[in-house]
Amino acid sequence: MDIAVTAKLVRGWVEEAGQLLRESLSNTSIVVEEKSHPSDLVTEMDRFIEAFYVEKIRKEFPTHQIIGEEGSYGEVDNMDGYVWIIDPIDGTLNYVKQKRNFCSMIALYKDGVGIFSFINDVINEDIYYAIKGKGAYCNDKQLENVTTYPLGKGLVALNTKMVMLKPTLSKKIIQEALGVRLIGSAGLEMVQVITNRVSAYVTTPLNFWDVAPGIMIASELGLKCSRTDNSPIKMLEKNPIVIANENTHQDIINIMKKTSNIDV
Amino acid sequence: MDIAVTAKLVRGWVEEAGQLLRESLSNTSIVVEEKSHPSDLVTEMDRFIEAFYVEKIRKEFPTHQIIGEEGSYGEVDNMDGYVWIIDPIDGTLNYVKQKRNFCSMIALYKDGVGIFSFINDVINEDIYYAIKGKGAYCNDKQLENVTTYPLGKGLVALNTKMVMLKPTLSKKIIQEALGVRLIGSAGLEMVQVITNRVSAYVTTPLNFWDVAPGIMIASELGLKCSRTDNSPIKMLEKNPIVIANENTHQDIINIMKKTSNIDV
Repeated sequence: MDIAVTAKLVRGWVEEAGQLLRESLSNTSIVVEEKSHPSDLVTEMDRFIEAFYVEKIRKEFPTHQIIGEEGSYGEVDNMDGYVWIIDPIDGTLNYVKQKRNFCSMIALYKDGVGIFSFINDVINEDIYYAIKGKGAYCNDKQLENVTTYPLGKGLVALNTKMVMLKPTLSKKIIQEALGVRLIGSAGLEMVQVITNRVSAYVTTPLNFWDVAPGIMIASELGLKCSRTDNSPIKMLEKNPIVIANENTHQDIINIMKKTSNIDV
Repeated sequence: MDIAVTAKLVRGWVEEAGQLLRESLSNTSIVVEEKSHPSDLVTEMDRFIEAFYVEKIRKEFPTHQIIGEEGSYGEVDNMDGYVWIIDPIDGTLNYVKQKRNFCSMIALYKDGVGIFSFINDVINEDIYYAIKGKGAYCNDKQLENVTTYPLGKGLVALNTKMVMLKPTLSKKIIQEALGVRLIGSAGLEMVQVITNRVSAYVTTPLNFWDVAPGIMIASELGLKCSRTDNSPIKMLEKNPIVIANENTHQDIINIMKKTSNIDV
């Protein structure tokens, strides 16, 4: 596979999916269903965009494995060979309630290593992407490597469940930082870290498709990504993550170590 | 004073200030100072934009009182007659660290009642405003009155200090809602409520200039604004606020009453 050629092809898919998502916002009759919980939603557009990507992949790369958030595409239990990871709408609750602050993500991994990855900030029409060894970009502008600085010099992003389930730990992190920000889309929170608008994103366990695209881009920029106990991200599993510049990452891991018995 | 004519004049100032703020983001040498705390910042642009507004007001309306966040324009100790309220950059920390997610606000009150108010979402180039009795708008599009629905049907916005200083109360509110969102700009959080992207904004005590512009617009749309003990907003004072649709407001006040001794 020629990676550059494939990435260019996929960028076209991403642009088309983004356009479909923007157009869908003027449709007042989008069907919304609850999954596990009233805040865990799926819409017909989640399924439609995933099917859009799956059809393209199946046609071009019939032997590749596919993992999709809404996926009925067979159980993927390994990262052998080429594996596509799709989150058609990340932040579906925002898509439904805010009509903004959501993204659409697709990444390609090979034997567990990220090859390229796209996060489309749909409403702002900003496509963030990285190709392994070729740097990370927003649209056609190369992103700078994020500098390293301590937790106290930046803002941090958390997920709702972190604030809810780990209030003491959250407080300890926030009080050492300049403040907390919370968008409600793992992909967009990671975009904030990648662009250095927040210094870190710290979470309770997130699904693999929520984090795999962002981790690929973050790694390309020299950011540190690990589980909250500082162990490596586990492929295909749920991961509680810390993604941050190196210095801030270390500061957060130190807080985690000191407070590991809090909020249990 | 012809309110419509004055509002049109002020809209011109708001557009000009917005343009100056957007241009300032490409200036890499903006001087930043800490005020009370490392997260409480003021930049030369806060002072410049406030002075820009003050000069315009002084020239057109020399007898009016002015309250500005960075103000050295005399101590205003009453809301008699016409009082201008200016927050040149609301979310200065975001302006510095993110170059987005901040707004610029100006409102005119007469004898304690809001006459008109502007919140400029500078980066998105969206100007939200209301004129008393004439409705609320985003740019030239009239905003719909927000419908009323229970806390459990929407997202809520909090401020950083709420999460930090009232973790138990925050948790009780968040767990009844669909989730929490946190931008870090009181003006933009109130825009989220005004546009029904979140159902409520709940805070620790905020300065009067942080909330007066948003409250004027929210009131015009039938939203409920009070202190967290359900008493009226106190003019010129710091206010811990709940701004929400009526049903959600009541749900939050009920939680507040039940948990008033928590987090003290």
